[in-house]
This record gives sequence, C-alpha cells and structure tokens, in this order.
Amino acid sequence: MTPADRGASQAEIDRQFMSEAIAEARLGFSQGGIPIGSVIVVDGQIIGRGHNQRVQLGNPILHGEMSAFQNAGRQPPGRLARATLYTTLSPCTMCAGTALLYRVPRIVIGEHRTVSKTTLCEDWLIEHGVEVVNLDLDECVDLMAEFINRFPELWNEDIGREHVAPTKETDP
Amino acid sequence: MTPADRGASQAEIDRQFMSEAIAEARLGFSQGGIPIGSVIVVDGQIIGRGHNQRVQLGNPILHGEMSAFQNAGRQPPGRLARATLYTTLSPCTMCAGTALLYRVPRIVIGEHRTVSKTTLCEDWLIEHGVEVVNLDLDECVDLMAEFINRFPELWNEDIGREHVAPTKETDP
Repeated sequence: MTPADRGASQAEIDRQFMSEAIAEARLGFSQGGIPIGSVIVVDGQIIGRGHNQRVQLGNPILHGEMSAFQNAGRQPPGRLARATLYTTLSPCTMCAGTALLYRVPRIVIGEHRTVSKTTLCEDWLIEHGVEVVNLDLDECVDLMAEFINRFPELWNEDIGREHVAPTKETDP
Repeated sequence: MTPADRGASQAEIDRQFMSEAIAEARLGFSQGGIPIGSVIVVDGQIIGRGHNQRVQLGNPILHGEMSAFQNAGRQPPGRLARATLYTTLSPCTMCAGTALLYRVPRIVIGEHRTVSKTTLCEDWLIEHGVEVVNLDLDECVDLMAEFINRFPELWNEDIGREHVAPTKETDP
C-alpha cells in the first residue's frame, strides 16, 4: 500500500519521501562523505536511492541524485517519465540534466539556500516543464552548512569551483 | 611529448584524440554495447576515457562521456576547467550538464546528425561559453546509424524516449 493509498496528502507524501533522502544524506556524512541524498519514487514506491559517493568511492559523477539513478538501474523510458526525484539539495547541471534526459516531471528539493549561485539551475528545469518543489527545510540547510563549514575544499571540488580561502581583508 | 609539442595543428590534434574516442565506441559495440566513446584531454594528455556501459554494466548513467569522467576520477577543480572533452556523438543534457558542472571549456564531437532533436543541447553549452567543435565524421555517423538500425529500442532507452515501431502507414 502506498502513502497515497492510505489517504496521505501530497505534502505528507513529499515530507515522508524527503525523510528517506535525508536518511541517505546522513548515512553519507557518517561515512565521511558529502551529505546529500536522494530517492526516486514511481507510483508511490522508491525505485532507487543513494547518496554522494565522491569520497567513499572516489567517484566524481556520483552525486546523490546520480547514485539514485544508478541504483534504480535500467528502466523502460516511460517509467521515469512519471517519477518524482527527491533530493536534499537543489540539483546541479549534471543531475538536472539527467532528470531532463529521462523526462522526470517533478523534483522535490530539501533546500537551495546553501547552493552556489553559479551551479543553481532550477530555472532551466522549469523552462523545460519540470515542476520544482522546494520544501526549504532547516534540517537540510543545517546539515549542508555544517559540512561546508568543516570541509570547504571538498565542497568546492564537488561543484567544480575553486576554493578561495577567506582572508582578514575580505572576510574578517 | 604531447601532439602540440610535436608541432601538430589543432585540427590534427582533434582528429587524433577523436580517433581514441572512436576506438572506445568500437570497443563498446564489440561488447554488445551502445557505440559511443569519449576521452578527456588536459594539457595534451588523456586523463580519462570510456564508452557507454548501459548494456555491459546495466548502468543508466554511464554514457560514454560519463564513463570518461568517472574513469578520470577526482580532479582539482581547475584541472577540468582547461580540459577538452572528445565524444563521438553530441552530448545529451546529462553529459553536457556534467561538462558545465566541471567548467569544461571545449567539447569536440564526432557528429550530431544521428542525435534526436529532443536531446540535442549544443545551444545550451554555447550559451554558457563552451566551444563546441563538430568534426562531422562519416565514420561516427555510420557507426551510430548501424546501431540505431539494429537496436532501436535500446537506443530509445538510452535517451529516455519511447520507441515507436514504424508502421506501413507512417514509415513505408
């Protein structure tokens, strides 16, 4: 029985599946990894889940969303075209591009407050007809803020940006 | 010694590295896979190479370009920002999005004649400042045309599109 079968509202369903994505993010952080997690849901069931594996597997393409797509495995084209992707952080161009490739129509994000303006691409998704729902959860912001504060160079590597160490002059 | 050190022209260099991407594509086809290959070149050296692994590994995110990024492994952010990505077929949104994430400034493609209009995204790359060079090689077109003709459903799965079998009425 899916959450919808039990009469849950869409907001309750989204919060429930996001809690699974957050569990993936926390699992990744506990492994010394980057705390971003994702699940892919089709017809009320999780068909793929994962977390960022840059540190754990030394893999630069396994963002949380990509891990979830990889773990979902090969799918008939029409199946992902009725999926919802839940991800704790707003997707980068790689992950957004993957969602567009597979025609995922709906993406629910935990937050986008900690995303670099240079990698944010929600507008591009919306232009292509994707529904983007931002739950704006303090829990997701706090997890990312702790990570970025402790490991700024690792975060910059993950988003392909140079790390500029703060100096007294620019960041007293 | 790199090709440039030997006095090769940019066109000669591009053709040489594309031949390595084509070798990857042919290797993939010989394994029963989708014949698209890629190499990533930095400072005249190949740092990552690969081919589509949907069939071989059952992996929906390992397009040829993604395999090359994965095999290149973790890189300092500035290194990929001076890379050239060589790929036998014009990239989809997933692979193009990955190139943008890592700020790859130049992409050399084998061809785009066999790409579905719905997945072509060269304009998006160009808008973001990426130089896209199309070698338009018959060798790459012939390889893809043979594959698509023999395995149309596999190809549609790889680009997330429904396969519509030709009928007498629409495709006599």
